[in-house]
Amino acid sequence: MDVNEYVKTLGEHARQAGRAIAKAETATKNAALVAMAEAIELAQPELLKANAQDVELGKANGLDAALLDRLELNPERVQSMADGLRQIAALPDPVGEISGMSYRPSGIQVGKMRVPLGVIGIIYESRPNVTADAAGLCLKSGNASILRGGSEAFHSNQAIAACIHKALASVGLPAEVVQVMETTDRAAVSALITMSEAVDVIVPRGGQGLIERIAREATVPVIMHLHGICHVYIDDKADTEKALAIAFNSKTQRYGTCNTMETLLVAEGIADAVLPALAARYKEKGVELRGCQQTQAILDGVIAATDEDWQTEYLAPILSVRIVAGMDEAIDHIRRYSSGHTEAVVTDDYSRARRFLREVDSSSVMVNASTRFADGFEYGLGAEIGISTNKIHARGPVGLEGLTSQKYIVLGDGHIRG
Amino acid sequence: MDVNEYVKTLGEHARQAGRAIAKAETATKNAALVAMAEAIELAQPELLKANAQDVELGKANGLDAALLDRLELNPERVQSMADGLRQIAALPDPVGEISGMSYRPSGIQVGKMRVPLGVIGIIYESRPNVTADAAGLCLKSGNASILRGGSEAFHSNQAIAACIHKALASVGLPAEVVQVMETTDRAAVSALITMSEAVDVIVPRGGQGLIERIAREATVPVIMHLHGICHVYIDDKADTEKALAIAFNSKTQRYGTCNTMETLLVAEGIADAVLPALAARYKEKGVELRGCQQTQAILDGVIAATDEDWQTEYLAPILSVRIVAGMDEAIDHIRRYSSGHTEAVVTDDYSRARRFLREVDSSSVMVNASTRFADGFEYGLGAEIGISTNKIHARGPVGLEGLTSQKYIVLGDGHIRG
Repeated sequence: MDVNEYVKTLGEHARQAGRAIAKAETATKNAALVAMAEAIELAQPELLKANAQDVELGKANGLDAALLDRLELNPERVQSMADGLRQIAALPDPVGEISGMSYRPSGIQVGKMRVPLGVIGIIYESRPNVTADAAGLCLKSGNASILRGGSEAFHSNQAIAACIHKALASVGLPAEVVQVMETTDRAAVSALITMSEAVDVIVPRGGQGLIERIAREATVPVIMHLHGICHVYIDDKADTEKALAIAFNSKTQRYGTCNTMETLLVAEGIADAVLPALAARYKEKGVELRGCQQTQAILDGVIAATDEDWQTEYLAPILSVRIVAGMDEAIDHIRRYSSGHTEAVVTDDYSRARRFLREVDSSSVMVNASTRFADGFEYGLGAEIGISTNKIHARGPVGLEGLTSQKYIVLGDGHIRG
Repeated sequence: MDVNEYVKTLGEHARQAGRAIAKAETATKNAALVAMAEAIELAQPELLKANAQDVELGKANGLDAALLDRLELNPERVQSMADGLRQIAALPDPVGEISGMSYRPSGIQVGKMRVPLGVIGIIYESRPNVTADAAGLCLKSGNASILRGGSEAFHSNQAIAACIHKALASVGLPAEVVQVMETTDRAAVSALITMSEAVDVIVPRGGQGLIERIAREATVPVIMHLHGICHVYIDDKADTEKALAIAFNSKTQRYGTCNTMETLLVAEGIADAVLPALAARYKEKGVELRGCQQTQAILDGVIAATDEDWQTEYLAPILSVRIVAGMDEAIDHIRRYSSGHTEAVVTDDYSRARRFLREVDSSSVMVNASTRFADGFEYGLGAEIGISTNKIHARGPVGLEGLTSQKYIVLGDGHIRG
């Protein structure tokens, strides 16, 4: 079958199914999610078997260890997929929420109603759990989804899709509410991200290469998740203990996440007081430091940071450190090098905290807290489909609400315009 | 000067000026808007002179009467530009608004802060008043703007730009907060709508041709304003008087606006009761009716509506009329032919009203009110930059809030992630 025809058919089916799921009652959607969880639990042996096939093929194809780890399912990971779906079922339904209704001088009553976007395309890589997560979030938010996973997880994704379809059928929802692509042809991705008539938004979840390709080619709007070059700025009015705790936690609590700090900025007035103690803690943890000249003057054995370092998302136990004159220089550095994901200031100065919050233009801006808090669960969204570094629609962690929009509703009693 | 270089320079300047206006205090922005209004009032003779030049050229170039009318300024129109700017000054400042702050179990406090988008590109056609309106709305919402008006209004736009720049200088804001393009080269538009690094969103204001070109070429997100194929559906549980009033007003209150009804759907159970009286009123007003076979059977002298009619935004005293079995068929028709702008139902049935509100997927959905209410002033936004038929970000009339976004802010007291 021709790939473009295939994707077009997926799109048409999704558009139709989107209408059914948009008007589905909350109880039906929740029942579907719980049924999906049960089907996944029940199918654990089949899921592990399909996954073993993918892992074997992956090894034969020379996938690296990190990729194989992301690909692999085990009983805990299967259970965690099911748990995730039950958590989504427990979240409030965003669809139909009415807000801001007020009477206008004309006598009409105007407000907004939250509505699904329609059809969401999710493009992801090796982790098979995204199939269940993304399907669940799209369904709860009243959207049909077209899921395109990585070719390395093909059998796992198809096995998860079978569970999802069994569950949809059990509550009387059309199977096309969630469609998992049955082709690994790369041309199918190009077709999906340019099919404006059938797809309302694309959410890519994957590495830099995938995201950049989609940004370049897509004509459908994309909820973009760029890399995270996150900064912590230790102001000279910072509390030293808080500064040490936040700078250490932001870097070392996990290395491979997008909200991990990659560059530490330190006001020169406090550098002597915090850097040596912090460097000792990093050293103990095995974090390599790369610093500016001033940092090198304070700390021994720090290699010189290049301009490349300020632009790098290490995702590893490496940290670049720069001493700045004060907040102006810190904000300038962030403006120049940040990817707009998450930045934090450590300060006890009220006006500087206010200024940092207002002037730093990132999706999350923090005062006296670790950058590692920037995710949907920590923010109380219940779950997230990604973290947006877009400027329009949604910035930061995107949960159910980010998969919806608001239309205006107007109530009258025969009102006409004079 | 090379056009691409020129637009690139505009973009770089806008990006820098965007930082200044993003952090400008509300009082400064309001003072700038009032100063703009005063400068425009004071420069009335110059504005009229520059405009006369455009009108003369337009006549020489054979512009049609409608276009010339849109192009022409007179003392009232100049005053109305100034008044519009004062109204924007009086609106609440959306920037920095903090909402939803709440404590999380981890102890951090999380909420959202409303922030400017950054740099907004406005592309418009003949009406010179858009220069002042758009500049004012972008400025108040904390954004820098790059304005590209139609070549036919070139001298008028430059004269308005001079007033704006005088005003910006008088309050100490950089001139680059509002840049009006000094070239009419079409390549400049292409450069602007693909300059993702410097422009955050494009708002086109103009005819179908302009919008379609931008939709096709833009890589910068676009707040799209498609045409308005708006429907009124008269349900068989409608109050006859309300139905007559709303159907008449939705079509005839103004013909050339995007929220004017273009197709009337009537439930067959009420068609005999409303259509003859309605047709008489339309006839008196000079509205031509085009109908389905059933409509033709009820009304004399109605020509047959073709499939083309259901897809046409007449912007004229022409109305297509279709009799449907009931709400299912009405919603199906709307789904197929609506442009997603505005639809209204006339009904006294509670459940049907609820259903129409939920299931009709347009930017404004109304019960017992005229479609003509769908605009920013009527909705209380104070002003509008356009009406969005997008699904993401903003749907319906876009005021100051639609020119902003929300970032997350996190307040802690040394909190780290466990």
